[in-house]
Amino acid sequence: MKRVLVTGATGFVGRHSLRQLVDRSYEVHAAVRQPPALGFPAGITWYTADLLEPRIASALIEAVRPSHLLHFAWYTEHGKFWEAPVNIDWVEATLRLTRAFATAGGTRAVLAGSCAEYDLAHGFCSDALTPLRPASLYGTSKLAVHTVLAGAADRLGFSHAWGRVFFLYGPHEHPTRLVSSVIRSLLLGEPAACSHGGQFRDFLHTEDVAAAFVHLLDSDVQGPINIASGVPVSIRSLVTKLAGMVGRPDLLRLGAVPVSPDEPPMIVADVRRLEKEVGWQPQWSLESGLQATLEWWQQELFAGGSTEKLA
Amino acid sequence: MKRVLVTGATGFVGRHSLRQLVDRSYEVHAAVRQPPALGFPAGITWYTADLLEPRIASALIEAVRPSHLLHFAWYTEHGKFWEAPVNIDWVEATLRLTRAFATAGGTRAVLAGSCAEYDLAHGFCSDALTPLRPASLYGTSKLAVHTVLAGAADRLGFSHAWGRVFFLYGPHEHPTRLVSSVIRSLLLGEPAACSHGGQFRDFLHTEDVAAAFVHLLDSDVQGPINIASGVPVSIRSLVTKLAGMVGRPDLLRLGAVPVSPDEPPMIVADVRRLEKEVGWQPQWSLESGLQATLEWWQQELFAGGSTEKLA
Repeated sequence: MKRVLVTGATGFVGRHSLRQLVDRSYEVHAAVRQPPALGFPAGITWYTADLLEPRIASALIEAVRPSHLLHFAWYTEHGKFWEAPVNIDWVEATLRLTRAFATAGGTRAVLAGSCAEYDLAHGFCSDALTPLRPASLYGTSKLAVHTVLAGAADRLGFSHAWGRVFFLYGPHEHPTRLVSSVIRSLLLGEPAACSHGGQFRDFLHTEDVAAAFVHLLDSDVQGPINIASGVPVSIRSLVTKLAGMVGRPDLLRLGAVPVSPDEPPMIVADVRRLEKEVGWQPQWSLESGLQATLEWWQQELFAGGSTEKLA
Repeated sequence: MKRVLVTGATGFVGRHSLRQLVDRSYEVHAAVRQPPALGFPAGITWYTADLLEPRIASALIEAVRPSHLLHFAWYTEHGKFWEAPVNIDWVEATLRLTRAFATAGGTRAVLAGSCAEYDLAHGFCSDALTPLRPASLYGTSKLAVHTVLAGAADRLGFSHAWGRVFFLYGPHEHPTRLVSSVIRSLLLGEPAACSHGGQFRDFLHTEDVAAAFVHLLDSDVQGPINIASGVPVSIRSLVTKLAGMVGRPDLLRLGAVPVSPDEPPMIVADVRRLEKEVGWQPQWSLESGLQATLEWWQQELFAGGSTEKLA
């Protein structure tokens, strides 16, 4: 019996992992800070748990006794998470959780890392080669967890992988993040202010991000591994696609937002480990994923919201 | 008076630099191994010179007394140049030429380097940041010249820049190189065997490569600088564009050629120095450049060759 504990289970990525875990015959236990509203698959056991409370992790692990752990929970409030001191609390919380998991006999853990751990000036991020030099407290904190796990995993006695996430998009994204904010402006008939858009980034639909994590959990692959598309897409081409889909290219304001000289011209993942060792490839094309995200926002803005909306 | 000596002046890049130098009021002296046929601009003084002959460099410099040097000449025979021992001869020849140039009072030199000097596993090549670790004798030899120049340029008494060239295409390219071979197969109605095409490369039309070198020569920018587009293009999208232009997508055989596990998934340049310090951007779009290359091959294959063809 594979019994998985998923943290951050109603989050931007976590929410998409649940159905896939159920479909793969996991007994799914989901930890969230607030009980979820409608729209989640049946057959999941829910726990309301604040993992930042020191005694919660061991109590939760004791209650679930999971064989598998999929840890997405972290502080991710848009505009604040990069430098928030609570990142350090999440280092502690994550280490507490993984130690409790190990103590209770857990065998396989997959945790969410970030491309922000890399020295992004290198642009093309190889899990084997690129120097790790975070420019933010968020990246530093993720790297700290990875460093402990990489050094201690053998002693802790479980197999683990560390999925480094790049740029995400999809339904349920925070409205001020790039894809969502451009879609909202276009749908509302307002100008969409963008940078020059010449930067290349690596985008993956959140459903695909979740699918990659579930495949990774089901594999024996160890250590850090990029969760991304491997395809460089310029911001310009991304927002131009969106404007074309909405039929309002006139609203795009490329160049309206200045770009910092420090902003990396490219942030793209080497995905060879994901493709070859995990054997996984994205299911969504960028076009179909953006179209689905656009349709979700049309529902949100003009039809009273989706049934999946969180309370 | 700006008097420039151009070596490799009828080569794939050098040939395009001549008109631009004339237009910028340089007195142009062009060194070639064989006298050129028709198709080159008027007002150029030609020299037949084999730079691998030890005494030729100083005789040539003495005859021209150039203030500027644009050095493209090297051994570039397709399929052979990566590991040919003659690369080492070109190290010597290039050092002889630059020393003779310095001795005769030359003030500004620009030389052609290569992306093959980088550790290409890093994928995104920054002139400031990416480790230099050539995988070929060609890359090693180019790097050797750069190393000497970088260390000795102050003592030699001239200003110099080292333009690292990435992937080129355009008319006059060797027929077995990627763009030319695919175009030829498509035009001749033969299957065009390609790899899976998922690799991203940085392509620049040779006219743009030459223009970048001429702008660089006219600037005060020092040291290594990437000459490239900065735009990642997958081989798949490139050959698909070509097949669309010819109207023969049925002839593409993506996946027919195996890809070495060592082949870098990405080789793309950081072009911020070229854009910001030299102030140069490409004039050709990929689409227009491929179309022009296609039309040149139509002329070559079906109309008796272009008037520019070399003897």
